[in-house]
Amino acid sequence: MIIQVKEDISNQQKDSLILEINKVGLKITEVKTQVGTYLVGIGKGEFDIRKFGHHEGIQDIHIVSDDYKLVSKKWKVKPTSIDLGNEVFIQDGEMAIMAGPCSIESETQIQEIVQHLKENDIKIMRGGVYKPRSSPYAFRGSGIEGLKLWYSIANEAGIKIISEVMQVSQIEEMYDYVDVYQVGARNTQNFNLLDELGRIDKPVMIKRGISGTIEELLQSAEYVFSGGNEKLILCERGIRTYEKASRNTLDLNAVPILKDKSHLPVVVDPSHGIGIRKFVHQMALAGVMAGADGIIYETHSCPEKAFSDGQQTLDFSQSALLTDHIRKTFALRKTFSLL
Amino acid sequence: MIIQVKEDISNQQKDSLILEINKVGLKITEVKTQVGTYLVGIGKGEFDIRKFGHHEGIQDIHIVSDDYKLVSKKWKVKPTSIDLGNEVFIQDGEMAIMAGPCSIESETQIQEIVQHLKENDIKIMRGGVYKPRSSPYAFRGSGIEGLKLWYSIANEAGIKIISEVMQVSQIEEMYDYVDVYQVGARNTQNFNLLDELGRIDKPVMIKRGISGTIEELLQSAEYVFSGGNEKLILCERGIRTYEKASRNTLDLNAVPILKDKSHLPVVVDPSHGIGIRKFVHQMALAGVMAGADGIIYETHSCPEKAFSDGQQTLDFSQSALLTDHIRKTFALRKTFSLL
Amino acid sequence: MIIQVKEDISNQQKDSLILEINKVGLKITEVKTQVGTYLVGIGKGEFDIRKFGHHEGIQDIHIVSDDYKLVSKKWKVKPTSIDLGNEVFIQDGEMAIMAGPCSIESETQIQEIVQHLKENDIKIMRGGVYKPRSSPYAFRGSGIEGLKLWYSIANEAGIKIISEVMQVSQIEEMYDYVDVYQVGARNTQNFNLLDELGRIDKPVMIKRGISGTIEELLQSAEYVFSGGNEKLILCERGIRTYEKASRNTLDLNAVPILKDKSHLPVVVDPSHGIGIRKFVHQMALAGVMAGADGIIYETHSCPEKAFSDGQQTLDFSQSALLTDHIRKTFALRKTFSLL
Amino acid sequence: MIIQVKEDISNQQKDSLILEINKVGLKITEVKTQVGTYLVGIGKGEFDIRKFGHHEGIQDIHIVSDDYKLVSKKWKVKPTSIDLGNEVFIQDGEMAIMAGPCSIESETQIQEIVQHLKENDIKIMRGGVYKPRSSPYAFRGSGIEGLKLWYSIANEAGIKIISEVMQVSQIEEMYDYVDVYQVGARNTQNFNLLDELGRIDKPVMIKRGISGTIEELLQSAEYVFSGGNEKLILCERGIRTYEKASRNTLDLNAVPILKDKSHLPVVVDPSHGIGIRKFVHQMALAGVMAGADGIIYETHSCPEKAFSDGQQTLDFSQSALLTDHIRKTFALRKTFSLL
Repeated sequence: MIIQVKEDISNQQKDSLILEINKVGLKITEVKTQVGTYLVGIGKGEFDIRKFGHHEGIQDIHIVSDDYKLVSKKWKVKPTSIDLGNEVFIQDGEMAIMAGPCSIESETQIQEIVQHLKENDIKIMRGGVYKPRSSPYAFRGSGIEGLKLWYSIANEAGIKIISEVMQVSQIEEMYDYVDVYQVGARNTQNFNLLDELGRIDKPVMIKRGISGTIEELLQSAEYVFSGGNEKLILCERGIRTYEKASRNTLDLNAVPILKDKSHLPVVVDPSHGIGIRKFVHQMALAGVMAGADGIIYETHSCPEKAFSDGQQTLDFSQSALLTDHIRKTFALRKTFSLL
Repeated sequence: MIIQVKEDISNQQKDSLILEINKVGLKITEVKTQVGTYLVGIGKGEFDIRKFGHHEGIQDIHIVSDDYKLVSKKWKVKPTSIDLGNEVFIQDGEMAIMAGPCSIESETQIQEIVQHLKENDIKIMRGGVYKPRSSPYAFRGSGIEGLKLWYSIANEAGIKIISEVMQVSQIEEMYDYVDVYQVGARNTQNFNLLDELGRIDKPVMIKRGISGTIEELLQSAEYVFSGGNEKLILCERGIRTYEKASRNTLDLNAVPILKDKSHLPVVVDPSHGIGIRKFVHQMALAGVMAGADGIIYETHSCPEKAFSDGQQTLDFSQSALLTDHIRKTFALRKTFSLL
Repeated sequence: MIIQVKEDISNQQKDSLILEINKVGLKITEVKTQVGTYLVGIGKGEFDIRKFGHHEGIQDIHIVSDDYKLVSKKWKVKPTSIDLGNEVFIQDGEMAIMAGPCSIESETQIQEIVQHLKENDIKIMRGGVYKPRSSPYAFRGSGIEGLKLWYSIANEAGIKIISEVMQVSQIEEMYDYVDVYQVGARNTQNFNLLDELGRIDKPVMIKRGISGTIEELLQSAEYVFSGGNEKLILCERGIRTYEKASRNTLDLNAVPILKDKSHLPVVVDPSHGIGIRKFVHQMALAGVMAGADGIIYETHSCPEKAFSDGQQTLDFSQSALLTDHIRKTFALRKTFSLL
Repeated sequence: MIIQVKEDISNQQKDSLILEINKVGLKITEVKTQVGTYLVGIGKGEFDIRKFGHHEGIQDIHIVSDDYKLVSKKWKVKPTSIDLGNEVFIQDGEMAIMAGPCSIESETQIQEIVQHLKENDIKIMRGGVYKPRSSPYAFRGSGIEGLKLWYSIANEAGIKIISEVMQVSQIEEMYDYVDVYQVGARNTQNFNLLDELGRIDKPVMIKRGISGTIEELLQSAEYVFSGGNEKLILCERGIRTYEKASRNTLDLNAVPILKDKSHLPVVVDPSHGIGIRKFVHQMALAGVMAGADGIIYETHSCPEKAFSDGQQTLDFSQSALLTDHIRKTFALRKTFSLL
């Protein structure tokens, strides 16, 4: 059960309400976000929702039987819109394009890519400065100095930044230099990190775990939301299966399912989803038709020389073409109304 | 190595050629299809292909290092076109739509669906008369009598038929009443069935195994081709993974990969691929954008009353809308040229 | 619901019983095996089992809610014993060892292995004469002639034979030369084959599918049982997962689960289960401790020269040592009583 | 390449050695642990190892071509022994038993379990005070206060403690109250956590990721080792597959493979590996026969009342019996010598 309480509810009203809910066997977690205050009731008690409806201070009350509550569409039918400022949104009904390198490498590299994005009217740049690497001997990213450099160039060009945060201590460090935090596929269930991201007021995009279920992704989003941050984006980036002809198995089924279960925007990452440069194009367009609200892909002025992920990175002419096709495909999709 | 020999090669020329190939350590399988005669050389011997080029009677000669040979694009760059007659084709550059019920149930049901297909200019009807069921107590299909009835109605209406064959003895039985044989996901590695389908002159669509790899699908097609039948279609229908929010995980990555590796047309089955009616639409369109040459889906006048698979079957208005969107999406895709 | 009827039930008594069961919404399948006659009721009707108990001609009546019925332990608590004659059994409380080559190759090979089995008191020899191969160009086995030769040598030595049957037409062909039919992992859901194996009176060992679930394995056994053949053995041989360090992932969890759900004996195949010769030993012993009633493994006088599966085949000294350890491990296990 | 240098190597000798190695295209990471100092060379350069052998200050030099180096058996053939003090070891040739509750709950609970362990001569107690939970509303553990209480009781009784660390900030907090840190399956690739655990001098047991490969587990261990901590234990605890009849698929294949590839001890967790109480016993014994150096399982005075994981937790009589059988099985295994 989710009860959204009025902003002017008195403490006494709230306590009396909680007491009554406890009586039917539900435990209450109070959640205060940028948008509102919620009482989330967890438990198996059977009860009649009308019993609480008369209480003063209640704005809205819903039964949500899923394991995730606040991210569910069952209580919030209106899609969540993520506003990055300067008219840049990630939301249902729009097509957010995010492009950039796997790793931030150098000032020149940043400038080339920013230039490419501007020429193609792409508003959000992706890039990593902390790189999760399975081997301890691999390149681990340019760190906070790389981020600061990148931010200063991108910000001046009016480009928003999305970048991966790997641990709690980086949240504050990165705060002034990032527009969207990305939680990577290896950290989808790093619950301490999710808890802490719930305490800040910046958008967070959570990638599905390497072999994470759709439900686990929603529960991870629930962590951040219940921590106090509603600005959430979900990302399908491919899952681990027995098939080795592609790097991962892009599970586009997840797109309509996530859109059906949750009010959060859903982004598709075809670069990691297939992992082979010449097929990223088709999978991006497939993602658009599956219902994605955004596409995130890797591009670099010279993919062969990229520090990482070169095999799945588009060059600028491929990127320009893809962006054009994404927009045309999305424009067609908008003309389709479902029954 | 694949050597296509001229149709007028003499036995003496052929024997002498085979002898010379054997000398470099390759074993030859001779394959005679509707289209041509091929000598497929298998083995690990190192050799110079030019050594054989001067032989009389050779039309074409190619090195193919994959485990599958005849279905590889490495020797046959031109896409295979499957001609069903009456201007109905399954091929690269076209969008074949195949729709129909999971099971053939009754004359009325067939007539309703045929009528729906005609109204929407859908030229191929799918349907099962032999049903593979995991429980021995479940409905096993209407059998050959159902097929004959179906064929007579469909044929009169100018509609082509695709239907699943489950065992060797059914091949002959079905022959006069089917336009395309379908090999189901549980029979993808039923090698005896594949062998026998290689001996007939009718198109065969092979579905990817329930947890089959892309390479195994190509090898299964190789079975039929090397048996003598080039009229082959590949079908992605979802694979088994840990994710249980959908019936299967539709692996659209397989589409561009199969199109890249093989000259055979590739069809996507979104009905089995996601298994939830309200999401079939998006996944079908995603399949089109991933590069499919055809879409096969389930439709029924009253999905709730279907003998099987009702939960993933579209009603006629959903089907009409989907067909329209598939065509528009494909029309857009045709305007896209890749770099 | 399963009703075992008395052998002397009259047709009138049976018809009247079936009629009454139909009334509560169950459909009856009559199953007659080597052992008894059963009425299997399928359907979702709610009813009181005592309603039928008074009927004449009933021996036993049980509610079984699983998707598999006749192979369930819920109605038949006593473990099934498979009697191969000459005091050779596959059953709970015994440890059946089955060893032999992947492929039957030659008279000399058969004689060497038979000799090895006799020296180590191994009573059952495995071997393939029809080989399912993913490539059409690979060795496909020595066929029925190989089987006849093998049988004559093994039979004279008092060794029983288990060999894979790949298609319906082979059942009769093999009948006189085989003691146990094996259904391979690619045919676990070849329902026509299972149907036909239900019509014969010889034991059948069904291997779990390449990515088959435990429930599907039980349902496949249900096919054979409901066809009329109770002589069934289940085999865990590894499943397909994302892990590529081993050929398959031997799922030993399946052993206690299958033993708990079904009255059928369970055999473990460590050779295919891990696919690496030097680890077969440990996995066989692990299988014993997991509760297996038998172990089937590959051995050859010279694994390096085996026609197939050499990489996972034990030589004779490894085989002798393993057999000794299996017996010692099983002897210890027999001293363990669970709570 | 791994070069173990002598403890008395001079800086000049070391610099000159590194310079020479760099020349052949390898990048050097210097690793200093409790045991020794290593120069790990990473790169693809071809070279003759004898080129460096003459250098002063070198103790040992090895080519290791795997992606993991320091944890490989290729340079350190002797198995690593983890010494917890008071004659408690986790090492090859011994059978370490670790038992305890999923969650530390109360003083009474701790005392009951400690008493049970003492009665059965079990030297290591497992238990969680920080619980990773997929839902933010679930019980998250008793925290550092729970750990302190537990440690004081266990320490007095001479029982060692293993407990999960979930984030960097907990490492120091827990340091004085834990004998072995456990890295859970959701943190196997939490690289920052691994880095930090490399900086301390306490044993670390790393669980395989929820869908982690064997190679990734070894690479995660490499992180800790290359950070400076050699005291490492690996743990197989089941992987995620399509099979849902068990909580996870216990991959016992991993045991002999890990023992073959690495010098680190390997522990099996049958409780999480199958997740069903009545089958934990068999899977523990299977783990012993697969070659495990230790078994970790869950026990509680009253599993039905456990705060978490009750469905897979043994009661004390089951635990006592299992411990007895583990020891007898291990005693038998020790009499087996492999070829």
